[in-house]
Amino acid sequence: MDVSVVIVLILVCWTCSISEVEMVKAESDVSDGLTLESVRDSLIRQEDSIVFSLIERARFPLNAPTYDPSYFSMPGSYGSLVELVVKQTEAVQAKAGRYENPKEHPFFPDDLPLSQVPPHKYPRVLNPAAVFVNVNKKIWDVYFNKLLPLFVAPGDDGNYASTAARDLECLQVLSRRIHYGKLVAEVKFRDEWKYYEPAIRARDKKTLMDLLTAPAVERAVKKRVAKKARILGQEVKVGDDIDENKGKYKVDPAVVSKFYGDWVIPLTKDVEVQYLLHRLD
Amino acid sequence: MDVSVVIVLILVCWTCSISEVEMVKAESDVSDGLTLESVRDSLIRQEDSIVFSLIERARFPLNAPTYDPSYFSMPGSYGSLVELVVKQTEAVQAKAGRYENPKEHPFFPDDLPLSQVPPHKYPRVLNPAAVFVNVNKKIWDVYFNKLLPLFVAPGDDGNYASTAARDLECLQVLSRRIHYGKLVAEVKFRDEWKYYEPAIRARDKKTLMDLLTAPAVERAVKKRVAKKARILGQEVKVGDDIDENKGKYKVDPAVVSKFYGDWVIPLTKDVEVQYLLHRLD
Repeated sequence: MDVSVVIVLILVCWTCSISEVEMVKAESDVSDGLTLESVRDSLIRQEDSIVFSLIERARFPLNAPTYDPSYFSMPGSYGSLVELVVKQTEAVQAKAGRYENPKEHPFFPDDLPLSQVPPHKYPRVLNPAAVFVNVNKKIWDVYFNKLLPLFVAPGDDGNYASTAARDLECLQVLSRRIHYGKLVAEVKFRDEWKYYEPAIRARDKKTLMDLLTAPAVERAVKKRVAKKARILGQEVKVGDDIDENKGKYKVDPAVVSKFYGDWVIPLTKDVEVQYLLHRLD
Repeated sequence: MDVSVVIVLILVCWTCSISEVEMVKAESDVSDGLTLESVRDSLIRQEDSIVFSLIERARFPLNAPTYDPSYFSMPGSYGSLVELVVKQTEAVQAKAGRYENPKEHPFFPDDLPLSQVPPHKYPRVLNPAAVFVNVNKKIWDVYFNKLLPLFVAPGDDGNYASTAARDLECLQVLSRRIHYGKLVAEVKFRDEWKYYEPAIRARDKKTLMDLLTAPAVERAVKKRVAKKARILGQEVKVGDDIDENKGKYKVDPAVVSKFYGDWVIPLTKDVEVQYLLHRLD
């Protein structure tokens, strides 16, 4: 290319005043493959994982000693059995490199052992400040205090270790789904940075929340997770006609839908706003 | 009651020659609530757990480094990443009391830490010799070498820790299902001890296997798990009519059905025979 053409092109770009944000956007689209479609597909797929994990937790009754700090004491540990199982299992997974993936967030990040495996090159999609957004304390609280009592049967069958392992699974899939808000926010920001940028600079959380909110989409999500709870939680029999409305479900579809509406969607949006506030750091 | 009546009753019992086995049976029915129906219901419920666990493993591609002993080395450990994750997670769960439940079987029983929680009184259902029946080495082998390559996509996304955690889940649900053979054998033995007892005393494995085999039931199980893979592995959409034959499934129903026929059912029967051979110890 002729040098003069290059100079003209540079001047054209300059006069177009392509913002830094837009250049980052263009670069990212090429490099990391993040699209609204891929994010949406992942969120839809994660609904299945959440429903599966709740169904599997519901195999066990409440098993209250799992959550009772006075139930046992182990040298060097404190808290309840579920805390011990979650903390120590997270430590195993941390050594195996789980939390090197920016989509994974530990519930007990303090004193987590370092990864012992060679580093993997995960695509750099998010602003590095994303690492400071972690709402797992809130997820822990709503899972144990709001959700759990609504979908497990009362009772005690002694399987506290398995119960705690199932709780960990529920917590991890909920955490992954809710922190996916960072990717949702990133992709929305890239698509409509002109609207987001002024609100971020003004630290205007209300406008950000309004920009991020799509009531029709939220209604569709709530409807879909209820349907998933019906279909994935039915008793499948050989020879029967399929009738998703018949029979009992392993987890109450209304509970799953309400939990999504009351907690999963709002917490995801909290993550989105928190992430966006740091998007221009 | 008159003493003479008691003596007559004792003599009647004596002449009836109620075997020790039958008395044990009668006692057990009262004390442990084991019934053919409860065992069957549990096996059917466990099919869902198996299908869920395979679907969740299939979220990740093969991720070969998870299984490659040369991929990493950690002080004090050897083997592959999946071995490390399974072994160390089992250790956490052992401390939390998981393996106190006779229905749970560790894959790495050597050097497993002791339970740190107060003992739970699980119903005594099985002959104590049951503890020596453990086919997890075989389950490990067929899961990784026969099943895994058939239901996960090729590829590598770096999520080896999560992949190993999903493998552990698959292994644990398969192990629970297959070792449930001990309960299947116990309940069948109690119902038809007259047929089983001579074969056990003669150590006649072939007759035991014939007694335990019900081809129609096996066909129904294979059909049902394929149906479960179709229903639980479909993509659920809001507003769509349900058509389980349409679309793609997250795990190939034919693979699940064939794996049940080729491995899950035969290994369960192996456990049943091994258990029965010790039933009169």
